[in-house]
Amino acid sequence: MRTQSGTKGARTRASIVREAAELFNTRGYAGTSLSDVLAATGLEKGGLYNHFRGGKVELAEAALTYALSVVRERRRAALATPGPAHLCLIAMVDEMVAERDASRVAGGCPIQNVAVEADDGNPALAPLLRRVRKAMREWQDAIALVVEDGIACGELRADCDPAIVANFLTASLEGALMISKLYRDRAHMQLVAESLREYIRGLRAAA
Amino acid sequence: MRTQSGTKGARTRASIVREAAELFNTRGYAGTSLSDVLAATGLEKGGLYNHFRGGKVELAEAALTYALSVVRERRRAALATPGPAHLCLIAMVDEMVAERDASRVAGGCPIQNVAVEADDGNPALAPLLRRVRKAMREWQDAIALVVEDGIACGELRADCDPAIVANFLTASLEGALMISKLYRDRAHMQLVAESLREYIRGLRAAA
Repeated sequence: MRTQSGTKGARTRASIVREAAELFNTRGYAGTSLSDVLAATGLEKGGLYNHFRGGKVELAEAALTYALSVVRERRRAALATPGPAHLCLIAMVDEMVAERDASRVAGGCPIQNVAVEADDGNPALAPLLRRVRKAMREWQDAIALVVEDGIACGELRADCDPAIVANFLTASLEGALMISKLYRDRAHMQLVAESLREYIRGLRAAA
Repeated sequence: MRTQSGTKGARTRASIVREAAELFNTRGYAGTSLSDVLAATGLEKGGLYNHFRGGKVELAEAALTYALSVVRERRRAALATPGPAHLCLIAMVDEMVAERDASRVAGGCPIQNVAVEADDGNPALAPLLRRVRKAMREWQDAIALVVEDGIACGELRADCDPAIVANFLTASLEGALMISKLYRDRAHMQLVAESLREYIRGLRAAA
């Protein structure tokens, strides 16, 4: 195994991954060819295979890992906002609105994109599906942990179910991203965010 | 314009549309070729072009129109359940759980599938996107109308905003469909449905 960290090769590889992430995340796996990646990066075929011997499959995995890490870090940072649990949850909702507006990775949420494309049993997509399942599980677990902490310190209602709250928040936010994407209009995302802030405030224990 | 209703030709056309709807809705527009449709229907290329002179574009439009009509009719019927508004909304939530379980059209909700695929500016997808935007608008309008009626007769809280409720319900349900698809597990859909039933009960005016 060559170590390329800090070398020109590593920088080239990272730049290919970023370009490929935008292409795969926007056009999907089936809709992206290696020629598209070559055109976007300006590389020759040999140069690309030099970094990704496994071709499209290996490149798509590296691109997805990168795209997932971008959204994961931001969402986690929001959940780790210092302060009461309900404000951490609201900060995560705010980050999802910001994620949509800033288009952290072109093409929107990589979890959603792979989940929708990878339901056709195409075996090439199986490794992508595994990564995305893990990413969604980690996101829901991180939310559930915040809810558990909030219950433990008496801030949130004792009858909150952390897994149910995590599932509801992630589903509503992903659906809102989808509808905002459909209309190319942030209003749908903002309205759902406002409904969720109200839902989150309703999780607080009576003072 | 030939009228083929009731003829063998019309039956063949309808059967092509149904097969194509399952393929396009599962594999996406980019992931479905006319050869896939020929293989699924057992037709020759000439036979297919006899019904769809516009080729893949025309067939994809007809297939999407069919897929959207299948889910629309069921969702609308649930919303038209006789009785109070909040029970109509809950019936629609129940239908979405049933839609997921019964896989009314293979591949899941056609609105979601096209919204996620058609964000890459591929001009071939523009007519599909227009149909899907209209379908989502009609679904949200149908929900908003039920909420308006509920407010007008004093059953639902006067401070409900019909458009916000419609946006929140559709986003949460679409996101839940997506997560259930990701894990091939109905549990995520059921948990979101339960959260939404509670949300809907919370829209009722105090007795």
